[in-house]
Amino acid sequence: MIKEKDIQNKIDSKTKPLGALGMLEAIALKICKVQNTLNPKLIEPHILVVAADHGIAEEGVSAYPQDVTWQMVYNFLKEGAAINVFAKQHNINVLVVDAGVKKELKAHTKLIDARVANGTANFLYKPAITEPELTIAKNHAEKIINDISSSTSCNVFGFGEMGIGNTSSAALIIHCLTGIALKDCIGRGTGLNDEQYSKKIDILTHALNKHKLDKRNVLEVLHYFGGFEIATICFAMIACYNQNKLILVDGFIASAAFLCANKFEPKIIDNAIFCHQSNENGHKYLLAYFKATPLINLNMRLGEGTGCAIAYPIIKSAVEFINNMASFESAGVSNKEVELA
Amino acid sequence: MIKEKDIQNKIDSKTKPLGALGMLEAIALKICKVQNTLNPKLIEPHILVVAADHGIAEEGVSAYPQDVTWQMVYNFLKEGAAINVFAKQHNINVLVVDAGVKKELKAHTKLIDARVANGTANFLYKPAITEPELTIAKNHAEKIINDISSSTSCNVFGFGEMGIGNTSSAALIIHCLTGIALKDCIGRGTGLNDEQYSKKIDILTHALNKHKLDKRNVLEVLHYFGGFEIATICFAMIACYNQNKLILVDGFIASAAFLCANKFEPKIIDNAIFCHQSNENGHKYLLAYFKATPLINLNMRLGEGTGCAIAYPIIKSAVEFINNMASFESAGVSNKEVELA
Repeated sequence: MIKEKDIQNKIDSKTKPLGALGMLEAIALKICKVQNTLNPKLIEPHILVVAADHGIAEEGVSAYPQDVTWQMVYNFLKEGAAINVFAKQHNINVLVVDAGVKKELKAHTKLIDARVANGTANFLYKPAITEPELTIAKNHAEKIINDISSSTSCNVFGFGEMGIGNTSSAALIIHCLTGIALKDCIGRGTGLNDEQYSKKIDILTHALNKHKLDKRNVLEVLHYFGGFEIATICFAMIACYNQNKLILVDGFIASAAFLCANKFEPKIIDNAIFCHQSNENGHKYLLAYFKATPLINLNMRLGEGTGCAIAYPIIKSAVEFINNMASFESAGVSNKEVELA
Repeated sequence: MIKEKDIQNKIDSKTKPLGALGMLEAIALKICKVQNTLNPKLIEPHILVVAADHGIAEEGVSAYPQDVTWQMVYNFLKEGAAINVFAKQHNINVLVVDAGVKKELKAHTKLIDARVANGTANFLYKPAITEPELTIAKNHAEKIINDISSSTSCNVFGFGEMGIGNTSSAALIIHCLTGIALKDCIGRGTGLNDEQYSKKIDILTHALNKHKLDKRNVLEVLHYFGGFEIATICFAMIACYNQNKLILVDGFIASAAFLCANKFEPKIIDNAIFCHQSNENGHKYLLAYFKATPLINLNMRLGEGTGCAIAYPIIKSAVEFINNMASFESAGVSNKEVELA
């Protein structure tokens, strides 16, 4: 077992003032610990973009029509979306997972069929996901991670999502599991105006008050307010943890899924890298709840795993410096601090 | 002449909610404007690491001995430093410029001889740089940019630096030209302890009070408190602006050089991208002075152009999305916002 002290010593031997690479040093340390090595590697990174539809979208909580979910799935498969462009830039594999899009999709080599049902139920009237459906999502998620892990050498997984209405689901999940005020968890999603935003708050407040649930019970929270993509990502993250993979956490929705995973498996935080801070209102509060400082904060609010992809080269830089920078000794650079008179 | 409105229309046609790519959209817009195109390109990026020594280092204002300057130059040339590792990761060309290191250096294909003198004078006693020396630095800087521009297709330049003692020089320059309190401009550099830090403040305060200079006169400020690397970077940035190149601004020292360049040529800000916020104390104040939000803030404080290199893939992502993402029309994705009842 590699000792943390030995990793830190390697970092401190590099030709730079102590601590001068800031968060890159913390990331390098984290990856070395997960991989139990002084020579960490990022191998065949994958981003899974998990898509599903939400019954609550019927209530008009999004600025875009529900058809955008399946339309964007085809856009991912045709490699025209933001995540495709950024993943290609960094040699990240993108796979699209249909966890329950409200339309039958044409088969494609990059599309994984993990449909739980034809969209969730509208949680304004009844629980979004049945208990058997949660089990199906869990089984699908485990199979996906197992299949990729056995057919590739991938040791780092990022998770993105697509699902019109899913900021509503995520807001309720985050409120229930963290106690952050519901209003702080609700944002403008894809771009609601003031009136639409106000209506979204009313609808979600109404849904919360309608169901008498145990807010501390993560399964119950997913049952009432979950989305198929959120549940699938949650269980996939746990599967990654169980296989000792690095987990890249994207924005608001993916972080809500991570929150659920963290409630099931608190130690999952050791394998997680918070990639970016989304501009969606609630994300900063959720990051604070985790005491997490994300790598980037570029006012992005797109989902799809784009935060993971944009942050990926920074994570790679952490691995590069610990492996490839010269040490004071090897470079013949003085490391002795001057005694000031 | 491409209109800003046409660039914005292209950005808004992409398959994403309006504004959802945040700062990437602002960067794409900026690059399109500089390059006067809807299809921007980053070609053969260069980072110039400009090194020089400082007379003030005699006073013990740094935690490291002055020899580290030339030792690090050799480390750059042997590709063992942080900037080499990160530049290699992103296919950025690194050239090292000797602007006045206090040692005769062996020739090397990646080393540009632009020596002004054997280190600056100690500004505790006399002006750091003579007026003829400033002219020499200017001529060298212009020649360097002209040579690279004529021998390559490079259209983007980053600037890094190495010089034991140079946070002292930069602190005084920034104080004089912005009016930010001197104490706020002074940081711990490579890692001073409390006692050393307190002594640095005393020395710089003493130096400031000794010389009666016109703080608004940038040439005079460089004359009294400049460094050869800072002056060279300043004039090189202006040469880049005159040739319509993109200018990547790194951390505390490079930003002090940019400040000087900006005083000479206010419109240079149009070509500049602020890459990162350094952990060196004064940098956040200087960025606020420019009303600049840097791309990354990873608590780095290493110099060498490392902030430019780490931020570079984000800049590239801005170029990638505007060139390569599908539009709503081409992808068949609905762009019409739902009318909420």
